[in-house]
Amino acid sequence: MPENRDTAPDGVTAPRGFRAAGMYCGVKKDPSKGKDLAIIASDFPCTAAGTFTMNRVKAAPVRVTLNHLRRDQMQAIVANSGNANACTGPEGIGWAKTMARETARALGLRMRQVGVCSTGRIGVGLPVEKIQGAIPGLVGALSEDGNLAAAEAIMTSDTVPKTRWVSLKIGGKEVRIGGIAKGAGMICPNMATMLCFLTTDANISRSELQRALGEAVEESFNRISVDGDMSTNDTVLALANGQAGNRAITRRGPNAKAFRQALNKLTLDLAKDIVRDGESTTKLVRVSVRGAATFVDARRVAEGVANSVLVKCAWHGNDPNWGRVMDAIGYSGARIREEMVDIYFNGTAAVANGMRSDVPEEKLRDAVSPDEFRVCIHLHLGDSGYDVYTTDLSPGFVKYNMSE
Amino acid sequence: MPENRDTAPDGVTAPRGFRAAGMYCGVKKDPSKGKDLAIIASDFPCTAAGTFTMNRVKAAPVRVTLNHLRRDQMQAIVANSGNANACTGPEGIGWAKTMARETARALGLRMRQVGVCSTGRIGVGLPVEKIQGAIPGLVGALSEDGNLAAAEAIMTSDTVPKTRWVSLKIGGKEVRIGGIAKGAGMICPNMATMLCFLTTDANISRSELQRALGEAVEESFNRISVDGDMSTNDTVLALANGQAGNRAITRRGPNAKAFRQALNKLTLDLAKDIVRDGESTTKLVRVSVRGAATFVDARRVAEGVANSVLVKCAWHGNDPNWGRVMDAIGYSGARIREEMVDIYFNGTAAVANGMRSDVPEEKLRDAVSPDEFRVCIHLHLGDSGYDVYTTDLSPGFVKYNMSE
Repeated sequence: MPENRDTAPDGVTAPRGFRAAGMYCGVKKDPSKGKDLAIIASDFPCTAAGTFTMNRVKAAPVRVTLNHLRRDQMQAIVANSGNANACTGPEGIGWAKTMARETARALGLRMRQVGVCSTGRIGVGLPVEKIQGAIPGLVGALSEDGNLAAAEAIMTSDTVPKTRWVSLKIGGKEVRIGGIAKGAGMICPNMATMLCFLTTDANISRSELQRALGEAVEESFNRISVDGDMSTNDTVLALANGQAGNRAITRRGPNAKAFRQALNKLTLDLAKDIVRDGESTTKLVRVSVRGAATFVDARRVAEGVANSVLVKCAWHGNDPNWGRVMDAIGYSGARIREEMVDIYFNGTAAVANGMRSDVPEEKLRDAVSPDEFRVCIHLHLGDSGYDVYTTDLSPGFVKYNMSE
Repeated sequence: MPENRDTAPDGVTAPRGFRAAGMYCGVKKDPSKGKDLAIIASDFPCTAAGTFTMNRVKAAPVRVTLNHLRRDQMQAIVANSGNANACTGPEGIGWAKTMARETARALGLRMRQVGVCSTGRIGVGLPVEKIQGAIPGLVGALSEDGNLAAAEAIMTSDTVPKTRWVSLKIGGKEVRIGGIAKGAGMICPNMATMLCFLTTDANISRSELQRALGEAVEESFNRISVDGDMSTNDTVLALANGQAGNRAITRRGPNAKAFRQALNKLTLDLAKDIVRDGESTTKLVRVSVRGAATFVDARRVAEGVANSVLVKCAWHGNDPNWGRVMDAIGYSGARIREEMVDIYFNGTAAVANGMRSDVPEEKLRDAVSPDEFRVCIHLHLGDSGYDVYTTDLSPGFVKYNMSE
């Protein structure tokens, strides 16, 4: 399929047969805060998959989209920023359905073929008539060059749009996978106020798409942490329209692995983009746990350290305060033996056998000073490992969150 | 027993037969940071009880004191601030034993009759010779007027000493219970970098003292949260010397309840003192959960809300951001039904049936503006409740913890 576009392929419009658009319609009270309505649509029928927040308080659009996804005919997504449409009761469900219905009407689809997402403040009435009024025009503006506008329109406290794509060869055919994401506040393992929309022109079975997506989310968005809070609205949706013309990718088929690897890379890159753009945070820290007795123990230690307020404060001050790391390891609930724990900051030993190493404080300080560094914790009790990407915690973060 | 003292009875020296002292001996590098060594001793044999950190990384003095407590002959406590003697390996055990041994020698006791505690930075060598050199003089200074000096000597980032006492009548005899505590950093339910030393002149059985202490700690120190981190050194010790001359308090005896109530009041007051003095925090917030299906659910919700970084940031800015509270309730892991949740800020309804109440934002803002307020969450699923005392989270807190 020849490409006839103004911009280089990127994000959700890199795969063939997808168009996108974004605009300001008035959900955000202040127009200077940027666009607030996005639509992504495939020109061809799709297979779809999704993963959603584990929070028991679920926003109305999450409930509606979960329902629509069951029919497996989804081929478009409408999303607004500036309002989460969460804790809005039966009325909220109505607003989410209206968004889907209007988008479907303008696209000539059925309501259940549209996924709906919202992000922003919880518990505030959604000015759905503004969205309703804007949808026909926005559908008219759908274009192969609309990726950036769509990525911008889902931003809340994000400072940069997040958009990526990858390509791979499957049986001689080029398959593309693209995505846009938003994050910033309420980012925590197990999905965050995080939206991610993925498109691919791969020909792939529904079950394999869902499985690949589940794995990719587990190893990317579920492993990032900014503030430890898990949101009510987190949603990852993937649409696959088969326009690459490859032989169908199925679970045990020869190409499943290649597709998964490409998808994993894409989602991990987007997840890291989210952490880097954490509200007023300045560092991207990879916490790697190795040698745990079990997978669950490895995860507990990694998440305990990655979510420790005191550890994150220390990192912001370039303080190699390994004592706080040891403390968090100890209360994580994982089986550990204090006298067997080793901790490395960017490869430099800080703790050996549960005690301070011989490395001078100065060197440890250098190790935690870069914008990106890695903390590796070895428990020496088994073969399990886990990685979490987290941030520091700055006075600016608190100031920002005092009155959002 | 007549009292012959310069100061009014207070804290650990309010009960008869206890003396205390505190001084600066050089563990804190900077003498302007205040005293750093405390001793509390009973002039008579005691029954003793203790509760300790649940952290799997346990400081050397915790390990040593646990051992000494088993013999039930403890009648003195030595504690230093400025150094946690944690993650210090076999050498650290030696230092803790030296502290106990020297104190015992100066008091004419056996080593196992002395409890040892340390609080301060983790993983730094303890200058034990300074402590060793200071102990004989400090034992000589033990006095009925030494409570305040001892309370000051266990302070780290605390800004005020915490000392309280209560009295009750048991069979016509006045029984006193006194205590000193320190907190500030690393305060979280399940014990915190928190030390609390309790003394009483009650005549009480060992098993009842341990049981009463366990209950008191569970309902006070285990229900406070400042930063969500649980320390390696948390210790609560109680010594009872029987000098009140009351008939022994035993488990099913007639006076067990009165003693427990008095002890609960004392420890809850000390726990609240700790939260009020949280590092650079400005508010004391009581999070009360009611109507949970089970006790565990109630605790999960209370702790989830009390430890949410985003909720605590909002409180600092007097922002009645109930959406963040709903969010934390949802991810707490407790069984909840979103549409049944009610939330009150200081008695003012913020959320009714999972949705914003009719109360204007202005009024909700007023409700969360005081230095002390209560958040009540009703789940309407059962009869279980739980309370946690927590704080706001300020930019100053982060600054303070960037380079301790």
